[in-house]
Amino acid sequence: MAKALPSRSENYSEWYNELVKRADLAENSAVRGCMVIKPYGFAIWEKMQRALDDMFKETGHQNAYFPLFIPKSFLSKEASHVEGFAKECAVVTHYRLKNAEDGSGVIVDPDAKLEEELIVRPTSETVIWSTYKNWIQSYRDLPLLINQWANVVRWEMRTRIFLRTAEFLWQEGHTAHATKDEAEAETRQMLDIYATFAEEWMAMPVIKGTKTANERFAGADDTLCIEAMMQDGKALQAGTSHFLGQNFAKAFDVQFLNKQNTLDYVWGTSWGVSTRLMGALIMAHSDDDGLVLPPKLAPIQVVIVPIYRTDEQLEAITAKIKPLVAELRKAGVSVKYDDSDANKPGWKFAEYELRGVPVRLAMGGRDLENGTVEIARRDLKTKEIVPFDGLTEHIKTLLDSIQQTIYDRAHAFRQANTFRIDTFEQFQEQLDKGGFLLAHWDGTSETEEAIKEATKATIRCIPLDQEAEEGSCVYSGKPSAGRVIFARAY
Amino acid sequence: MAKALPSRSENYSEWYNELVKRADLAENSAVRGCMVIKPYGFAIWEKMQRALDDMFKETGHQNAYFPLFIPKSFLSKEASHVEGFAKECAVVTHYRLKNAEDGSGVIVDPDAKLEEELIVRPTSETVIWSTYKNWIQSYRDLPLLINQWANVVRWEMRTRIFLRTAEFLWQEGHTAHATKDEAEAETRQMLDIYATFAEEWMAMPVIKGTKTANERFAGADDTLCIEAMMQDGKALQAGTSHFLGQNFAKAFDVQFLNKQNTLDYVWGTSWGVSTRLMGALIMAHSDDDGLVLPPKLAPIQVVIVPIYRTDEQLEAITAKIKPLVAELRKAGVSVKYDDSDANKPGWKFAEYELRGVPVRLAMGGRDLENGTVEIARRDLKTKEIVPFDGLTEHIKTLLDSIQQTIYDRAHAFRQANTFRIDTFEQFQEQLDKGGFLLAHWDGTSETEEAIKEATKATIRCIPLDQEAEEGSCVYSGKPSAGRVIFARAY
Repeated sequence: MAKALPSRSENYSEWYNELVKRADLAENSAVRGCMVIKPYGFAIWEKMQRALDDMFKETGHQNAYFPLFIPKSFLSKEASHVEGFAKECAVVTHYRLKNAEDGSGVIVDPDAKLEEELIVRPTSETVIWSTYKNWIQSYRDLPLLINQWANVVRWEMRTRIFLRTAEFLWQEGHTAHATKDEAEAETRQMLDIYATFAEEWMAMPVIKGTKTANERFAGADDTLCIEAMMQDGKALQAGTSHFLGQNFAKAFDVQFLNKQNTLDYVWGTSWGVSTRLMGALIMAHSDDDGLVLPPKLAPIQVVIVPIYRTDEQLEAITAKIKPLVAELRKAGVSVKYDDSDANKPGWKFAEYELRGVPVRLAMGGRDLENGTVEIARRDLKTKEIVPFDGLTEHIKTLLDSIQQTIYDRAHAFRQANTFRIDTFEQFQEQLDKGGFLLAHWDGTSETEEAIKEATKATIRCIPLDQEAEEGSCVYSGKPSAGRVIFARAY
Repeated sequence: MAKALPSRSENYSEWYNELVKRADLAENSAVRGCMVIKPYGFAIWEKMQRALDDMFKETGHQNAYFPLFIPKSFLSKEASHVEGFAKECAVVTHYRLKNAEDGSGVIVDPDAKLEEELIVRPTSETVIWSTYKNWIQSYRDLPLLINQWANVVRWEMRTRIFLRTAEFLWQEGHTAHATKDEAEAETRQMLDIYATFAEEWMAMPVIKGTKTANERFAGADDTLCIEAMMQDGKALQAGTSHFLGQNFAKAFDVQFLNKQNTLDYVWGTSWGVSTRLMGALIMAHSDDDGLVLPPKLAPIQVVIVPIYRTDEQLEAITAKIKPLVAELRKAGVSVKYDDSDANKPGWKFAEYELRGVPVRLAMGGRDLENGTVEIARRDLKTKEIVPFDGLTEHIKTLLDSIQQTIYDRAHAFRQANTFRIDTFEQFQEQLDKGGFLLAHWDGTSETEEAIKEATKATIRCIPLDQEAEEGSCVYSGKPSAGRVIFARAY
């Protein structure tokens, strides 16, 4: 039997790293900061992609594909944008290798230097807006509602699988609109889609809010975000939706004839979620025995393990199980019947627990006689004996219930770990224990920076549903009109 | 009304370029050799992806994701592999930009030079086999059946949208097996899947064959391929499946304990198709009026255009059409009702013809009275008046018939343009007219090279179903045991 995972309370960070590895989700590659997403991890990501893609298309977006490379001069066109990304760019400078003349091996051919260096996209606003310039002439060409699924590269110095990697997978939406109102509505609509996805698919409650100027996307007028709480009480930014104003339109001279027949700059948005969500999913729900996956994203929703001593028993169980498997599949449930004889039932139980399969059925000789089956749920670790008849309906209801229970548990956890804080002493004390701190802030970047410097806490967001409340800043004592959320974050 | 396309007979190459542009499939980007795949083009690619992905999964393959970057030393480990790819590699040498001290703008930071250069993957055998080394210890870990959907970069000097681009999208399967037989069977299975996809989805007949040593994948022992004929009589390699022998296992020291408990090198395969298939799809079927899409890959299968003079007429037509649209969608048919008043019906007809929508319905005042509708098929450009009742069934049958007709037409074209050639004079003469030349070849690389030099024709493949036939090489006169396929190719 494999060694137990480190426990969350002992070493949360080690628990995460080991779990990612043991559950076969991903691993570090030989290339610094780049990960290999393994088949089981990728199957979860594919489910996420499918659900999000459907939601994007339902709201009128289309997929397209833009180049991996961005000419250096493009990246430089929007001043704050290049400022934000210059420090972490992978740069292509040459386009050929050759054999060294001294026979020492393969080298970069110095004669094959690019005239202009190419940046591996860290995000695609610049290359996309340079293209939109040719696509947009009049208001009739708007809105342009486009998304792309792609890989991007940010040369981060400290990386962590799924959470912060040099290369990651994501989707990036880039829309263009005739009016400011329309672009703002789009920014908000996409935030709502992300929140719905996080809550209904990932079973992960999120807080919708606005980023402060310090935390804004480089090149945006406004950044909306969803913030989730992990089980160590830290925050994780799970998705962002940016209102770009006319910044990229101006940088790339994208003008259009409006209905009044005058030239105007186009309004833009961009929005994205990434494989970081995999990290969020793991840290939001899993426990010391392994993954806990919400049924809607589980590659295998139900595993069935036969318990037998003789081949005849196995045959009898299999004869009973096969029609059930077919019926479950027909009902849209993904199910695996694990009758391999390479491993014992106990090993299988632990393995599927580690992999977060939401429902486990076990059937042995006595079940066969009684017309029953043992059914175990991963989230609560409860077991019950239920009649074999009507099992498909029972399982469908159970899967819904698990999805809801996981969400409720994460929500209750967040509630229990969210604190109204009124003094800086309280602030520091609570922060070390973890959680979201609802505190007054005077609205200045200086105070925000000073708090970050002193405590490593950042303002996660100004909640969209912030209550108006007169108060004084927890740090400076200056007046404030409402609380914002502070936390340490991934 | 937009200008007509160039005709195929006049200038096939211009016809292709203009069609790609006008049908909104893709365009060249500001980055040399890299394309932008536009939403309509990408929607076709997504349908291709979905169909292929389903076939891969049905045969037990799983998706995963490996890094974009390959350390230069990895690429060099398999000698013929690096030989094949070194001349067209995009090389990342630095990881940061900075502001120039003289204020001249943003430059590559010379202090941020990578210790080892990274190659943007041209294909992923090396990075994947370096990973497989950690995943494979015993025969129990085999077979490993993995696929990835990814972008790759080959710095081609002469590029052409979809057909040969610096960056392209593809899938690459990489499998590992315990025995040579199993790996060979996998190589063949994937070739068959590609052929099935080309014929049943793309409606494009293909010839399955083996590549000669000259045309083999760099690092393979054997390359199987499917070859299609375009309407100008040239060949297009539409997919390849490689038997890698133990080459990459040896280069990356991937050994396993076999059932006899001895160490052995793992056997490998790799196989891929790319966005090149988009070029093949266009060139196989389209005509001087625009795209002709097989229904199974058409983003819009049916378009419905109302013909009206008054708002009341439009309302009456819409009331009749709406339930039909719902019924068609329920039947799995993708349908668009274009009641926009921005364009006249004639304009719409031309536009949907250009975009290759397989079936067009038009309904006017008289149809309304008579309970009929005009139905036009894109492939044959025929029209008929049919009763409105039972239309869904009629359309479903029609879509099947169009799929078959397009295939049959392409097949007949290939038959008519395939020639048995017995002298080199005939060979040269026919080649200028286009087509596949079935000719005897002496089996040597020298002869193959000489023919290529003299005629620009290459051996497309040695057909898997080659008939045994004694003959003499069309070039050297030396003995040959069967005919191979020569053609000029994309």
